[in-house]
Amino acid sequence: MKIAIYDTTLRDGTQREGISLSLADKLRITEMLDAFGVDYIEGGWPGSNPKDAAYFESVRSLSLQNAKIAAFGSTCRKGSAPENDANIKALVDAQTSVVTLVGKTSMLHVTDVLQTTPEENLRMIRESVAYLKSLGKEVIYDAEHFFDGAKLDFEYALDTIKAAIDGGADTIVLCDTNGGSMPWEVEELVRTVAQTFPDVPLGIHTHNDGELAVANTLAAVRAGVVHVQGTINGYGERCGNANLVSIIPDLELKLGYQCVPPGNLRQLTTLSRAVAEIANLAPDNHLPYVGKSAFAHKGGIHVAAIRRNVDSYQHIDPALVGNEMRVLVSDLSGQGNLLSKAEEHGLDVSTEEARRVLQEIKQLEAQGFVFEGAEASVAIRLHRARPDYKPLFTLIDFITIVEERRGRGSLSEAMVKLDIDGEIVHTAAEGNGPVNALDLALRKALIPRYPQLADFQLADYKVRILDGANGTAATTRVLIDTQNGHKRWSTVGASTNIIHASWIALVDSVEYGLCLAYDSDHKHDTVAVRT
Amino acid sequence: MKIAIYDTTLRDGTQREGISLSLADKLRITEMLDAFGVDYIEGGWPGSNPKDAAYFESVRSLSLQNAKIAAFGSTCRKGSAPENDANIKALVDAQTSVVTLVGKTSMLHVTDVLQTTPEENLRMIRESVAYLKSLGKEVIYDAEHFFDGAKLDFEYALDTIKAAIDGGADTIVLCDTNGGSMPWEVEELVRTVAQTFPDVPLGIHTHNDGELAVANTLAAVRAGVVHVQGTINGYGERCGNANLVSIIPDLELKLGYQCVPPGNLRQLTTLSRAVAEIANLAPDNHLPYVGKSAFAHKGGIHVAAIRRNVDSYQHIDPALVGNEMRVLVSDLSGQGNLLSKAEEHGLDVSTEEARRVLQEIKQLEAQGFVFEGAEASVAIRLHRARPDYKPLFTLIDFITIVEERRGRGSLSEAMVKLDIDGEIVHTAAEGNGPVNALDLALRKALIPRYPQLADFQLADYKVRILDGANGTAATTRVLIDTQNGHKRWSTVGASTNIIHASWIALVDSVEYGLCLAYDSDHKHDTVAVRT
Repeated sequence: MKIAIYDTTLRDGTQREGISLSLADKLRITEMLDAFGVDYIEGGWPGSNPKDAAYFESVRSLSLQNAKIAAFGSTCRKGSAPENDANIKALVDAQTSVVTLVGKTSMLHVTDVLQTTPEENLRMIRESVAYLKSLGKEVIYDAEHFFDGAKLDFEYALDTIKAAIDGGADTIVLCDTNGGSMPWEVEELVRTVAQTFPDVPLGIHTHNDGELAVANTLAAVRAGVVHVQGTINGYGERCGNANLVSIIPDLELKLGYQCVPPGNLRQLTTLSRAVAEIANLAPDNHLPYVGKSAFAHKGGIHVAAIRRNVDSYQHIDPALVGNEMRVLVSDLSGQGNLLSKAEEHGLDVSTEEARRVLQEIKQLEAQGFVFEGAEASVAIRLHRARPDYKPLFTLIDFITIVEERRGRGSLSEAMVKLDIDGEIVHTAAEGNGPVNALDLALRKALIPRYPQLADFQLADYKVRILDGANGTAATTRVLIDTQNGHKRWSTVGASTNIIHASWIALVDSVEYGLCLAYDSDHKHDTVAVRT
Repeated sequence: MKIAIYDTTLRDGTQREGISLSLADKLRITEMLDAFGVDYIEGGWPGSNPKDAAYFESVRSLSLQNAKIAAFGSTCRKGSAPENDANIKALVDAQTSVVTLVGKTSMLHVTDVLQTTPEENLRMIRESVAYLKSLGKEVIYDAEHFFDGAKLDFEYALDTIKAAIDGGADTIVLCDTNGGSMPWEVEELVRTVAQTFPDVPLGIHTHNDGELAVANTLAAVRAGVVHVQGTINGYGERCGNANLVSIIPDLELKLGYQCVPPGNLRQLTTLSRAVAEIANLAPDNHLPYVGKSAFAHKGGIHVAAIRRNVDSYQHIDPALVGNEMRVLVSDLSGQGNLLSKAEEHGLDVSTEEARRVLQEIKQLEAQGFVFEGAEASVAIRLHRARPDYKPLFTLIDFITIVEERRGRGSLSEAMVKLDIDGEIVHTAAEGNGPVNALDLALRKALIPRYPQLADFQLADYKVRILDGANGTAATTRVLIDTQNGHKRWSTVGASTNIIHASWIALVDSVEYGLCLAYDSDHKHDTVAVRT
């Protein structure tokens, strides 16, 4: 059975604290959602700001395959007719085939917020829906605060739904606006509405304030709704909206519904991460189904079990949602983990070499390194363990200087001296800080010999102080992500000296990129994504 | 009715990718959980690694008020007696009053992972529980993969429970180990077990792989469990464990159960953020109940509604969980906050001075500073705003050098030149890293004039990279905690240059300690703890 998916990332999602999407961002996300196959994309509230109005103007030029664009707005104001209402006019001007109208269900909001009479609110709902229907729109009615309102005054809540149906609404969406409802309450109230109005399709819109948005959505589907609203990654005001990235696989893989065109569920992981990137938010590694850690196994006992039966510690096959299983290399892991890591990179490593690298890794972890997030640092150590290994360069010395003068700000410089195949190369550079200066000087030294290094970008730089109680003498761990357009890899360094820790991670990053990134791209396409 | 809360942050929580807790961290979290009032704290798996064994040794010296410490381990190995099993021996050596034993429920795991017979698994469960009971332990039995196992072979799953009960288990905990179960499945299976074994208390342990861990826990409570396992902030392997920080207020505020001692729910927000800090993870602002954004209102319409009725867009009063509503901070309320902060430190600050400091703070926050965790940096800015302010010293210049030579390791040195009351003081020092060297040189310059500085210790040093996507050129935020035996205070600095950011926080720390720490100790004893 088909469930219609209504995405409101571009409207309710942008209410999240810290998100701001440009017009170009919104159009890119629109194309991705359409390719994934959602049924509706709520683009914004054209009456509320000029950026949303511009979106509806621009989105008309996209040729979408699956999704209809919906404009969102509220019912007309008290005491006025919809045709004279500026907000309704903005909705019409958006020129979408679908309009989503939100109206008040709860007596508390009618009296305290709208400050009008119960009857006037019913008129506002009925006439606003009817006016938009008279213009040929598909009208989705969002019953704001439905569950809280029904608990307060059940009869009146049903009256507001009836007003929307009398106006001609195509779908009635029951909203848990404040996000505090329990799944069994949602299920029971949805069933009652479905029995009262059996001829109108129902939808659900939940928020995550009790960490139950997904459960409340599934409960509503079991009670009969056929239309589900939510956002990618659960972005939204306060604790977020219902997370479509969990709901869609729950519905398809666990309950047997169809939400997106067959086969498209495999795009889910890419979609989730791409939307995070566009929103400039770090992807949440622990998101169900799509997180980088969602199928990652750390404990040695779990790993051993998985080698005996792959399904022993995973609830679905991660390939179904475009994700993959990862075995983490840490001081808990065995030689088996390392040997399979070597195979991934096409490295021919003997058991004895793997044993030595494992020992080195365990020693380094005791000093503060962590390899589970830095698989390129593992791979490059396997590479270095081979008998035919020859280093690309060796450090002779480096020096970094930070100088601060009253009234003249700070100056950061670095000098690097390398032995590259017998040739001594000496460079200097200035940066925003000492690590940046060191990075620039290292690149300056290597690029003439390894021009492909010019394509490497430092994509992320993280610092963690491990034993902060030692104050400024604490051990510092540095994680560096590098990318070259084809792939992205992570390396680690640790030391009481942040410059030294950064140097270790930088060297691993450069050596991995020059020796292994290209190889493993070509030998193991699927592995390349993993590292 | 009372629900027992069983926290496994220190064991299952540390399976999260990227978490690593030191022994000192684990002991601090233990004290916090105990003060909050959970019933059980699972401290670790003593058989699996030496760090966990050391925890059980150390935890005995804490005097806990509310919680019992539990040691975790698995049933004995196939073909061996519990009294001869190294893992069981480690559990006994942990000397806890409570032991939690995990055993296999699922036929798939018995045949494919343990590679033994169904009968042998039942014996391992029964004898392991019985042996630990014979030593006088309270035994909690975790039925691993209970829900998946029951779907595969229902009779056998019940047989494993019966084996644990026959062995004398005090509580049977049904585990959704792979995290893929649906709430209605959990509810139905828990009811069946409760009907089959009406005399044994049941518990629930869920994971979040379908984004349903909280819902599955609540469903189990509705079906009769009286013991709930989970972690603070939902930390755990893959997508995490059931989040106690959502479950406890859901149970107390929505379902009327009692989980922690009356009044303690107000500590929830502080607990959640403190555990995140200790684990060195950024607190998730969007967590239900405790997130910084959980009661934050961005939309103008919501804010307007809230001014008419405070409950119009919130599901509970945030004070119940120690959180607070946030709307756009007006300049006026901001000034009020600053004025009361000044009073705390006995500083006589005018409204105009407060306005200027507020403006400076807003500007600095836009650059990456965060003053929420650094109240000493706020206080010292108020101090500096007074017309009679005279700096203790001014910087003329400093220089830090890090040098690395092949085979000779790294050398970090700093020189500092200060003007102290007209006298030019020039010092140099060597350290573990450049910030440590700078800190030592600064102290060397100041101690002859301000000998009380010798008592100041840097108690914590944290670094966070703010916009990691800019690589090594990203903005760096530094937080420093300092203590002098009487009190502890926090300061902040931010810059693209980590040395410069550290310098700002160091100077605030020294100046606050010399000017205000002593004063406010004597004027406001209770305030001293807060800062």
